[in-house]
Amino acid sequence: MKLQGKAVIAQGGGPTAVINQSLVGVALEARKFAQVDRIYGAQYGVQGIVNEDFVDLSQETVQNLEKVAQSPSSALLSTRDKPDEKYCKEIFKALKAHDVRYFFYIGGNDSADTVRIVNEEAKLARYDFRAVHIPKTIDNDLVLNDHTPGYGSAARFVASAFSGVNLDNRALPGVYIGVVMGRHAGFLTAASVMGQKYADDGPHLVYLPERPFTQEQFLGDVKSVFDQYGRCVVAVSEGIVNEAGTPVMTTLTKSTETDAHGNVQLSGTGMLGDLLSDLVKEKLKIKRVRSDTFGYLQRSFLGCVSDVDQREAREAGERAVHFALWHNLDGSVSIQRTANYGVDYRLQKLEDVARKTKLMPPEFINQQGNGVTDEFKKYLLPLVGSGFEAPHRLRAPGVPKLLD
Amino acid sequence: MKLQGKAVIAQGGGPTAVINQSLVGVALEARKFAQVDRIYGAQYGVQGIVNEDFVDLSQETVQNLEKVAQSPSSALLSTRDKPDEKYCKEIFKALKAHDVRYFFYIGGNDSADTVRIVNEEAKLARYDFRAVHIPKTIDNDLVLNDHTPGYGSAARFVASAFSGVNLDNRALPGVYIGVVMGRHAGFLTAASVMGQKYADDGPHLVYLPERPFTQEQFLGDVKSVFDQYGRCVVAVSEGIVNEAGTPVMTTLTKSTETDAHGNVQLSGTGMLGDLLSDLVKEKLKIKRVRSDTFGYLQRSFLGCVSDVDQREAREAGERAVHFALWHNLDGSVSIQRTANYGVDYRLQKLEDVARKTKLMPPEFINQQGNGVTDEFKKYLLPLVGSGFEAPHRLRAPGVPKLLD
Repeated sequence: MKLQGKAVIAQGGGPTAVINQSLVGVALEARKFAQVDRIYGAQYGVQGIVNEDFVDLSQETVQNLEKVAQSPSSALLSTRDKPDEKYCKEIFKALKAHDVRYFFYIGGNDSADTVRIVNEEAKLARYDFRAVHIPKTIDNDLVLNDHTPGYGSAARFVASAFSGVNLDNRALPGVYIGVVMGRHAGFLTAASVMGQKYADDGPHLVYLPERPFTQEQFLGDVKSVFDQYGRCVVAVSEGIVNEAGTPVMTTLTKSTETDAHGNVQLSGTGMLGDLLSDLVKEKLKIKRVRSDTFGYLQRSFLGCVSDVDQREAREAGERAVHFALWHNLDGSVSIQRTANYGVDYRLQKLEDVARKTKLMPPEFINQQGNGVTDEFKKYLLPLVGSGFEAPHRLRAPGVPKLLD
Repeated sequence: MKLQGKAVIAQGGGPTAVINQSLVGVALEARKFAQVDRIYGAQYGVQGIVNEDFVDLSQETVQNLEKVAQSPSSALLSTRDKPDEKYCKEIFKALKAHDVRYFFYIGGNDSADTVRIVNEEAKLARYDFRAVHIPKTIDNDLVLNDHTPGYGSAARFVASAFSGVNLDNRALPGVYIGVVMGRHAGFLTAASVMGQKYADDGPHLVYLPERPFTQEQFLGDVKSVFDQYGRCVVAVSEGIVNEAGTPVMTTLTKSTETDAHGNVQLSGTGMLGDLLSDLVKEKLKIKRVRSDTFGYLQRSFLGCVSDVDQREAREAGERAVHFALWHNLDGSVSIQRTANYGVDYRLQKLEDVARKTKLMPPEFINQQGNGVTDEFKKYLLPLVGSGFEAPHRLRAPGVPKLLD
């Protein structure tokens, strides 16, 4: 017997450039099933479910949905709320009141956990209910996934930024430090290398949260690159930790601001870049030192998007509907790499994905812990999408001097 | 009688996304003239001329030149050197030694001044010589120009950044402050509004160097927007000054770093954003406050380029060759708007452009001094190029509540 009722879709956590592709994938695919009465969107994530802040996506045109799919950030708006059991009971109560039988939540590993708890509430209440988590994160840190929707586009942004900044730094030499998002996993910072083409192209140094960061190594590394090339471009993750495992950033903040998940604020401030910049100026006596913190541009910049990432985000949404509607299953949709390059989508158990974090594997990080390997570049290449081309240099021959 | 000899081209100051279009415009156009023996490129701007650091662009393929034209940043590398009379004598000496009769320098108002002095040296020495300045600056601050090559692409970057950030801030509400380049002129910061479509789209506040910045107005403005929308996006120029005319930034820096032009370092640090962010947190007790400093990405980001800007930068280079070779004239190429939208290129006297700064005209700034006018939007629209489309929102109807 088919489960008849409404479907609800929501988006949680930080927005990405392609999160609306997953939303539209669900919305358009679910309409094809007669047992789905209506498709509601909850505004502001789980908060919108508790507040019954629903919009009726069944009354959206395909034209507008397709335009929204192309737009960055969460069209249904988002939340940082991390529901506990009590909160999840409220979610379930609202879903039940609206006769919701299908729940799709697009988000990271915290969102997977929310789906898991709500689903358990339904089971306890013997309420027929299907709940599917759809992966999303620019950090690329979900376990059991080759990569996650959102990462490819953010990686393309970071690669495009460093590719241009490398040329800028070559034209006006000095030390440049770019701070990239990523709390625990260095995948996004590692993407900084994708624009490298010539042997002296930056970033020359890449610091990831997976390896301890020490001032001594950092200064030694910068000095060594600067001595060789007369310039140095550094990519550093906002989440770098010292040898004790403490984020370098938290040793700087006066007032530590934490969110509902207990995470300290890392983004939205230029402090880490400024600290490292001051270090280089003071200790290495290099005059022209600049730092930029890429900040929120990485996840929402209009028009910087990977077509591969778009397509996969859309498919992840479509497949979530298939798993729930055709197969009557709960779980977390995951991306598997099945060919070079091809992917497939498998359903994982919610508890196997929830609250777990995937880090950069050792084979992607160089031995000195200040760069990435060719294996990582091979992994990333298809994800940044088509049309990404490293810039070109002049190769005109030199002219003999005539004076002196 | 035609002036026979070599041509030298160089690039000065901060790179842009289209500065190589002008370079290639000169290189390809100059080859068509029999009186040009060779076309040399000087590496690192005027510094490369003094050091006879020339490459022979005549030996570049059209294929590679066209690829370089598409690449951001200065392919001939750049310099911040601001030559005085003695330096210009050295420049002239090197040019004369290589039998250079045509000198093209791509840069801002300081570069125009360098061209002017070198040209006067040549006249004093009765050396037959043509010198043309080709405009370039993301700041859009050259007088006698409707706008300058480099501005349109940088404006597109800033507009794309704020358009995405506005959606991000809508999904996860709070206060967001984006710091944009621009020492004296606010044109680039003003470009932040180009992605606005819905009435509540940010940036809600825009602060320019042309109007005095006071903490009181800033905090009052932010509070007022936040009370209305529950969120606030602010665009602020790095060059904002207080009522005494002192850059707000210099009141913050411990060690003021100045370049050869006596300019204090404004970019490459997140301090201004952090200061404003702290102010809002402390005085308005708003919890979620974020700031980003867009930094060097604005002028070098790979792949964010205005096709109109590209075409005009190319034409400015081509026309520079025409003025020097067909018309035997010195001067500074300028862009005039002749239609909506069409441009023409006129040659200005070097002394009329050199060292002068154009600011935002009063009709582009709103009365409160915290935003821009529709007249500015009309001015900017064609410059950001084709394919720039503001994002779309869902417009699904709300669903009645069932609980309580």
